[in-house]
Amino acid sequence: MKTHHVPQPPTPRAPGDDALPGSAPPAPVGQGADGPPAPAATQGREAEVLLERTRALVDPRLRAAVASLPGSIRRVAMYHFGWQEVDGSPSSGPAGKAVRPALVLAATRALGGDQAQAVRAAVAVELVHNFTLLHDDVIDEDRTRRHRATAWAVFGIPDAVIAGDAMLALAQRLLADDPSPAGIRASARLSSCVIELCAGQQADCAFEDRGPDEVTLDECLTMATAKTGALLGCACALGALYAGAGERAVGAMDGFGREAGLAFQLIDDLIGIWGDPARTGKPVGADLVAHKKSLPVVAALTSGTPAAAELATLYQGSMNTPGEVSRAADAVDRAGGRDWAQIAAADRMARAVHHLSRAVPDPARAGDLLTLAEFVTRRTH
Amino acid sequence: MKTHHVPQPPTPRAPGDDALPGSAPPAPVGQGADGPPAPAATQGREAEVLLERTRALVDPRLRAAVASLPGSIRRVAMYHFGWQEVDGSPSSGPAGKAVRPALVLAATRALGGDQAQAVRAAVAVELVHNFTLLHDDVIDEDRTRRHRATAWAVFGIPDAVIAGDAMLALAQRLLADDPSPAGIRASARLSSCVIELCAGQQADCAFEDRGPDEVTLDECLTMATAKTGALLGCACALGALYAGAGERAVGAMDGFGREAGLAFQLIDDLIGIWGDPARTGKPVGADLVAHKKSLPVVAALTSGTPAAAELATLYQGSMNTPGEVSRAADAVDRAGGRDWAQIAAADRMARAVHHLSRAVPDPARAGDLLTLAEFVTRRTH
Repeated sequence: MKTHHVPQPPTPRAPGDDALPGSAPPAPVGQGADGPPAPAATQGREAEVLLERTRALVDPRLRAAVASLPGSIRRVAMYHFGWQEVDGSPSSGPAGKAVRPALVLAATRALGGDQAQAVRAAVAVELVHNFTLLHDDVIDEDRTRRHRATAWAVFGIPDAVIAGDAMLALAQRLLADDPSPAGIRASARLSSCVIELCAGQQADCAFEDRGPDEVTLDECLTMATAKTGALLGCACALGALYAGAGERAVGAMDGFGREAGLAFQLIDDLIGIWGDPARTGKPVGADLVAHKKSLPVVAALTSGTPAAAELATLYQGSMNTPGEVSRAADAVDRAGGRDWAQIAAADRMARAVHHLSRAVPDPARAGDLLTLAEFVTRRTH
Repeated sequence: MKTHHVPQPPTPRAPGDDALPGSAPPAPVGQGADGPPAPAATQGREAEVLLERTRALVDPRLRAAVASLPGSIRRVAMYHFGWQEVDGSPSSGPAGKAVRPALVLAATRALGGDQAQAVRAAVAVELVHNFTLLHDDVIDEDRTRRHRATAWAVFGIPDAVIAGDAMLALAQRLLADDPSPAGIRASARLSSCVIELCAGQQADCAFEDRGPDEVTLDECLTMATAKTGALLGCACALGALYAGAGERAVGAMDGFGREAGLAFQLIDDLIGIWGDPARTGKPVGADLVAHKKSLPVVAALTSGTPAAAELATLYQGSMNTPGEVSRAADAVDRAGGRDWAQIAAADRMARAVHHLSRAVPDPARAGDLLTLAEFVTRRTH
């Protein structure tokens, strides 16, 4: 999953997108149980507080786990996490926001568990997330992350691949060493999730080699679910396991995180086309310039409209002038790709909320998870 | 760990190397309990029978596990294992010999366990071994393995990295899904082993960037232990866990496999310099041409002899003429690197046997493990 750790614009506003996740969650689940839903700005601050509290709990354990790695691997890991500069001096670079660890702990709390018991699982999930970032940057040849050079760009491909491998193994060791009976169940789920993440990343790479009209929307949704939804779902499921939940609640928690993750991806894809460069830190239509077969683009390409054919032609060319990029964005819009993505995001968020209501029947307990899901999808941070 | 799946010469014969692992194991542990030690040729056949029986038990489960991977990843994995050609047609290419699975099962039997219970662990170890092969080939830019193009050379770096990641996760899932109480202990040990394998591979890469006199023999031994010994040790330890053994026996089994692995590496390094090209399938002095800082070379470089200085000078040059390679091999010999490696291999094998006698006090039960260790180090196969 690619995350953008640069300031992001709010959900793109277009006529008729009132149903987007940026608006209040559907009743009756959510903070509404204690009164009317909080305004968006308040929810954003609530999410920041949740994330900050998560980092206070999780960071020391995450750092201790990474410190246990052999020296040369630790150096790469600490650079990647933004804790050290290349020369080993302390760094004040921006670290991850800890969305996934926050989901783990919030899921445990929501099901009446003791979040202190789940910190280990939160660390494991964050390690797996960063394992995927290290390897994805190698695979995608991305040279920048969080405004710094990526690990492979600094240390070379071998060290970045090896550091990723070691982080994955470290995550598994944390769970296997857990005296809690949840450890082994969490380990099995996390391993299955990693296989799904691999399938998603593989599909994403394969799509790039295929023609504009050779990727179906179903394939694209499956890929995005695997690459983005699976780990958010797994985070929530692990939290449920550490609350001692049964398979049904664990599965529903997975569904909640998974659907929220897909909503996030849809909105991220919209921002990749129509995001404000001043806020995204990326050029206009960055995903179009990169010929990315993102969800709105594939929805447009497979729409059977005249605009789809126009878009396909643009995707077969170099598309490196502002005029071409603008025409491509317009074609996605006219082919219905923009509307589709906005409606699909709202739909996925509604499904997420439905799953959550099954996992956590008491709405008063579901507030933090909803706040985090809104935070992830609204992207006002 | 690099394994050579090409026919190999017997242990290099040099004056005074009677103590090498190729000779009979020290009494009293070993098959000698049922009579005098079998001649080397007989032991080799015994090892082949053990490996064949292992493959009959393990292969179906290994294939079933790989078949559970998502399609596009499965394709890369099946090619890598030699089960399929690039186009998906069945392949009769040479698969792995299954030394590590055989060690798992033999360790379980030696400690009175039911090997059927340990097949899952044997599959997990073989998956981890192949995960390292996939990633090491990418990292070392090796284009050939088992007489075929490596996975990355065929499918590209992204697919090979992803397939390796998925195999590691699959190994962990097998252990986490195991209803046996040994599963979680095995998972913890295997994860720690993977971290050590990563450290070994990282050190190996780092050595290549350092000058001929900048790598100490201790560093080199630590690297070889991590890269080669750790997984052989882990295989034996997992077998012990599945026999319900206590920590002491498990640790001794790990020591047995680990020391035997180091003996193997020392002999492999000797073959890399003095092996018969007709049998290794590699040019004369292949490791010298590659400027590899193998154990005999580092022993020679750090000997403080005039020959060490001569070797260092050769290592700073291109060393691509037969005359230079021959002079380098001669310098390793004169600096004592060859003798040191032969004595060290014998010493490691003696340590391995000592560990084994602690893990399995009844020599009659230790025979299969000794046969496998002899097989690995003698390299007459």
